[in-house]
Amino acid sequence: MTIAKMTVPELEKFLRAEFPQAFSGNDILIEEADGASCRLRQRYSEQMLRPGGTVSGPTLMALADFAMYVVLLSAIGPVGLAVTTNLNINFLRKGVPGHDVLAAARILKLGKRLAVGEVSLMSAASPEVIAHVTATYSIPVADGFQR
Amino acid sequence: MTIAKMTVPELEKFLRAEFPQAFSGNDILIEEADGASCRLRQRYSEQMLRPGGTVSGPTLMALADFAMYVVLLSAIGPVGLAVTTNLNINFLRKGVPGHDVLAAARILKLGKRLAVGEVSLMSAASPEVIAHVTATYSIPVADGFQR
Amino acid sequence: MTIAKMTVPELEKFLRAEFPQAFSGNDILIEEADGASCRLRQRYSEQMLRPGGTVSGPTLMALADFAMYVVLLSAIGPVGLAVTTNLNINFLRKGVPGHDVLAAARILKLGKRLAVGEVSLMSAASPEVIAHVTATYSIPVADGFQR
Amino acid sequence: MTIAKMTVPELEKFLRAEFPQAFSGNDILIEEADGASCRLRQRYSEQMLRPGGTVSGPTLMALADFAMYVVLLSAIGPVGLAVTTNLNINFLRKGVPGHDVLAAARILKLGKRLAVGEVSLMSAASPEVIAHVTATYSIPVADGFQR
Repeated sequence: MTIAKMTVPELEKFLRAEFPQAFSGNDILIEEADGASCRLRQRYSEQMLRPGGTVSGPTLMALADFAMYVVLLSAIGPVGLAVTTNLNINFLRKGVPGHDVLAAARILKLGKRLAVGEVSLMSAASPEVIAHVTATYSIPVADGFQR
Repeated sequence: MTIAKMTVPELEKFLRAEFPQAFSGNDILIEEADGASCRLRQRYSEQMLRPGGTVSGPTLMALADFAMYVVLLSAIGPVGLAVTTNLNINFLRKGVPGHDVLAAARILKLGKRLAVGEVSLMSAASPEVIAHVTATYSIPVADGFQR
Repeated sequence: MTIAKMTVPELEKFLRAEFPQAFSGNDILIEEADGASCRLRQRYSEQMLRPGGTVSGPTLMALADFAMYVVLLSAIGPVGLAVTTNLNINFLRKGVPGHDVLAAARILKLGKRLAVGEVSLMSAASPEVIAHVTATYSIPVADGFQR
Repeated sequence: MTIAKMTVPELEKFLRAEFPQAFSGNDILIEEADGASCRLRQRYSEQMLRPGGTVSGPTLMALADFAMYVVLLSAIGPVGLAVTTNLNINFLRKGVPGHDVLAAARILKLGKRLAVGEVSLMSAASPEVIAHVTATYSIPVADGFQR
């Protein structure tokens, strides 16, 4: 069974220190993280929207990338230098204006050098998936990181 | 030969009206757009950075998505409802802090319903590609848009 | 609730007639297909392998693409001209030589023009996912197909 | 300037020994490989086709994956255990029945652990790109390979 290497409060503390751009305010909440999956909530704000009232692609891509990083930290512990190497997103449906966006991430493969995961993005107003992401992170190694 | 359906000033005017979130200030410049390719410049700001001083993934994804939209508008004219259906990004190198980011987009295929393109993202300080993107846009049709 | 537009025997009959290259012999079995998901089995053969005894990438890509087509047929009925527009595959683990390969596909979004799905590929010897695929199909429309 | 680590005859000899499944007969020719790019030709055969006379997706995916491996060998020398970790393909146009398929691959980034490249697939009958691929290979390291 997978055991989380960091609790949610530990994740929050680490991210506030290391990643203030992505995790400074109160807009993103880590609802759970268990070493194999995590669930985030991004509070609704008008800055999420693009014309037509849909949630913007960059909002969804940024949240998915961040969710993948959170589940990876939860799995391997505090590693500041993990970087995304590939991200693929399929936009499926319009998000619902006025509602929070949820991200459910899970690890598909945790290797020594690469971690691959998938993220489903949903509106808090509906269980339907708005966008689906797969992403790969490169994990630094002890003898110096080389992507 | 490809002929642009919109000049750069026409693109700017359209985007300022339709896409104020992405194109409101002076941070992104359309340097050229010819109906088949375009080149954008995003002025450096500290908000682009993530820990370690690299240009953040979401900054690059957002700029690439926007560049793909600009070259598509340049190819098909003012169509407000084109939406990204797929975006795949490979992060290749660190961006250079303190320098603008450039996006060079070109259309690989312009169909009636789908347009596919690729975008190379570079630092203004170096010709090396920081990240490479392929993206697909769905083009609305006359009888009502269906993704 | 989703209702399959074609039964497994109907799918087999259609595919044998329309897709003899992919579905002529007895190497691929449709174990189930319910309009929203499907499960295929490809019998082990030495032709699947690449050096080192791993199941080859092209074998996995071809099976995933075919599984996506089967679940789409199951969802929309016999449509010969649906074509893949995008396929993204992450290779996660080595396949197990000597064992069948399983593909579990499900539809993430069925639109009027595009269908997006994901496919997990596994060895019959282990529940672990060997490779994970997302793919998009373009669905022909009544007034003539345009990709 | 990039210098190829293996000549075309050296590549052919290595591939015939290590990769007989993909490079046994005379169907694929390495037309050039210079350490940064390569060009392959796959001779036309009816087995390439799917219904409607188009070149099949699996044919194109397999050729692109192989082209990426050839350019990587050309860049790093004879390394048998490099494996694809991610491949993303956009299908753009129908191939032309009766004609060879060409693959032009180039390396976007050669790192110590990962190599990323892009491949354009064309019919020998037309300069238009049939399909566009980006792919990542994981390169084994001296102290034992870990994906």
